[in-house]
Amino acid sequence: MRFVDIIEKKKIGQALTKDEIHYFIQGYVNGSIPDYQVSALLMAICFQGMNDQEIAWLTEEMLYSGDVIDLSMITGITCDKHSTGGVGDKTSLSLAPMVAACGVHIAKMSGRGLGHTGGTLDKVESIEGFQIALSQEAFIKQVNEIGLAIVGQSKTLVPADKKLYALRDVTATVNSIPLIASSIMSKKLASGADTILLDVKFGEGAFMTTLEDAQALASTMIRIGQHFQKDVRAMISNMNQPLGNAIGNALEVEEAIQTLKGKGPKDFTQLCIEAGSIMLLQAKKAASKEEAEAKLRQVIEDGSAFDKLVEMVKSQHGNINQIYHPELLPKANHVIAIHAKTQGYVKKLHALELGVLAMELGAGRRIKEDIVDPAVGIVLQKKDADYVNEGDVLAYVHTNHSLSDAWIQRFYDTFEFSNEKVDVPNLIYMVLDQESIK
Amino acid sequence: MRFVDIIEKKKIGQALTKDEIHYFIQGYVNGSIPDYQVSALLMAICFQGMNDQEIAWLTEEMLYSGDVIDLSMITGITCDKHSTGGVGDKTSLSLAPMVAACGVHIAKMSGRGLGHTGGTLDKVESIEGFQIALSQEAFIKQVNEIGLAIVGQSKTLVPADKKLYALRDVTATVNSIPLIASSIMSKKLASGADTILLDVKFGEGAFMTTLEDAQALASTMIRIGQHFQKDVRAMISNMNQPLGNAIGNALEVEEAIQTLKGKGPKDFTQLCIEAGSIMLLQAKKAASKEEAEAKLRQVIEDGSAFDKLVEMVKSQHGNINQIYHPELLPKANHVIAIHAKTQGYVKKLHALELGVLAMELGAGRRIKEDIVDPAVGIVLQKKDADYVNEGDVLAYVHTNHSLSDAWIQRFYDTFEFSNEKVDVPNLIYMVLDQESIK
Repeated sequence: MRFVDIIEKKKIGQALTKDEIHYFIQGYVNGSIPDYQVSALLMAICFQGMNDQEIAWLTEEMLYSGDVIDLSMITGITCDKHSTGGVGDKTSLSLAPMVAACGVHIAKMSGRGLGHTGGTLDKVESIEGFQIALSQEAFIKQVNEIGLAIVGQSKTLVPADKKLYALRDVTATVNSIPLIASSIMSKKLASGADTILLDVKFGEGAFMTTLEDAQALASTMIRIGQHFQKDVRAMISNMNQPLGNAIGNALEVEEAIQTLKGKGPKDFTQLCIEAGSIMLLQAKKAASKEEAEAKLRQVIEDGSAFDKLVEMVKSQHGNINQIYHPELLPKANHVIAIHAKTQGYVKKLHALELGVLAMELGAGRRIKEDIVDPAVGIVLQKKDADYVNEGDVLAYVHTNHSLSDAWIQRFYDTFEFSNEKVDVPNLIYMVLDQESIK
Repeated sequence: MRFVDIIEKKKIGQALTKDEIHYFIQGYVNGSIPDYQVSALLMAICFQGMNDQEIAWLTEEMLYSGDVIDLSMITGITCDKHSTGGVGDKTSLSLAPMVAACGVHIAKMSGRGLGHTGGTLDKVESIEGFQIALSQEAFIKQVNEIGLAIVGQSKTLVPADKKLYALRDVTATVNSIPLIASSIMSKKLASGADTILLDVKFGEGAFMTTLEDAQALASTMIRIGQHFQKDVRAMISNMNQPLGNAIGNALEVEEAIQTLKGKGPKDFTQLCIEAGSIMLLQAKKAASKEEAEAKLRQVIEDGSAFDKLVEMVKSQHGNINQIYHPELLPKANHVIAIHAKTQGYVKKLHALELGVLAMELGAGRRIKEDIVDPAVGIVLQKKDADYVNEGDVLAYVHTNHSLSDAWIQRFYDTFEFSNEKVDVPNLIYMVLDQESIK
């Protein structure tokens, strides 16, 4: 087998065989196939796509390129949840305690953020002392005892994806449904949970810019789940504006805490309830969506969801005082109010640019080696469809440096106003499962 | 400027700017842009193409990535000719002496063969003592004195192409009109001739498999010529069967000598006359095609074309006895006749496979490091449209090893027969110049 023939085959639009995909992933991981051949194949895949069978094989080869976590020692059904990433997406921090409080086991492996989207690990690490590196034994023990854990991805998981992702990032081959789907699913499958809920976001701040693409990606990942006989479901949500109001690590932790206390932003709370109810159905902890939603609202109301977060932070050596008193979380030196210079209804709020602006404050990484500042970020006071009077505060900017005029101008440019009343945009467009994509 | 953005731009189908193409070629040659990014761009170019302006800029950047030969010391118009390569293509060996005998100056830099197509250098090197490495001074002096020289390409010419071609070869990105056109034209332009005739072949044994693709490639190269204000013309010829009867280095030299004596195969002689007449028009040595053809037939008849070959071989230290007595050229140990096992008209003769079969005898290189055996090859006795009786000799195989049954079977499979009479296939489909492609 010659790798150049495999590239040629994909270039002219033919499907690759299981053996060819095996040869590709094995050869790339063991170093016998060089980057320059792989990047050519990746680009050919961007143009020619892959069929479901190829994508399943690719996922399988990536999955078994490294260790696969065995969660069989966890009692009952273990659920995982993955978001394709968005601006202000702190879902795991609220959702995991909520569903855990309903008796679902959550063994979550998370990643760090890069570019305009934040990573769950960076967020939990803004809590003083929080340990994201647990041994597999400690991880399983914690999930059995308190029902949830959020840890960093093991370095031995899916080495093929690490190598491929680094290459895709510098060769403009990130944006391809077969490559995104196999990357996400190989990691999720290697993490060992029994069920997986995917939050596939679309819009400006997301991988997929259109609803159609997001739907195609979600369907592809559900079909990969079928190949592995896993219950995989997906919700398609809107990322044309940031999720919730806070963008920035400690600020998002604080918002997640408020949400667990029933005082979170409406859109973010809705997303958590919706996602949580699907997970409860997957875990067979509720017979209907209505029952699931009622249970989730109950654990917020009675404080048991908040208590779960405290238990997890305590178990992972984090400072629980910061959870009880979020004002103790890292604080920026300056909180600068930005006032509206015009009035009208907010017609558009550019999520991608807001993510980039927050990254530039220090909340995110431009390159992997950047160090994140936990304290900084943006807390929006106005979002899509809100009416704004001249002089109203649009947002509070938490920063450790002064803001340049250019930064402030770019911030203003993220808002588009209209004199006409605007509808509140839909947040969750659809929920997909094996039945609905048939 | 980030190279990943340039890849992305081409991936989504946008045209690159002059600066971006400059950054690409400069960065690749100086090593600041790695192979794995370049191969992704090359694959994106395979899918999205390039417009004429981009192709002209790419050619220009490649051209000036190395030395450009100055042929201004050669008196009169200097003509060059390039074939996109085919099986049995020994055109330069006959054509150059023919047009030189008509007073045209030919300063030809040639390459070696790889895969199923032979290279002119390998062919002339089957003449004992023939020197392909001349200093630039000696090269120019020889062209001024006797009118022609065939030498190896200078190593300092178009380094960008050398690096790109090696990468394209292993990343399935050879087959792309913008990349083929810029590769060929940058080398031809760097070689410094005043006019260029391109023989663009199509069919099984060629880069371009269809007439349409060959026409597109030819038009692209003529337009590159316009950008550089060079008289570039092209003929489109059929490579669905080998050119002439001989495939293999010394065997082709012998056939070229016979052709200069007026005893060559009909198809090959026709191609030389056609190409030569275009070159005479380009060099303004004839006022019409008819006049040009008459001159070319004259130099064959009066022996002056043959004498030119002798002069060139002598000047480049080759053994002219082998030209006067081709039976002195390297000979294989065995000449094996292959007899027809059936009868009928030859409907198809698979040129590509014949090229591969000759390569396997030792006539060509599978990889660059292979050493070519000058003596071996195939001399066809039957070609397209010929009638064959059972037992007729299809070809003589010149070999230094015994032939395996598998090799012989594959040889038989290169012939397809029909009971119906078959038309002799067209050899030259069209001639293109700046006017005709408007």
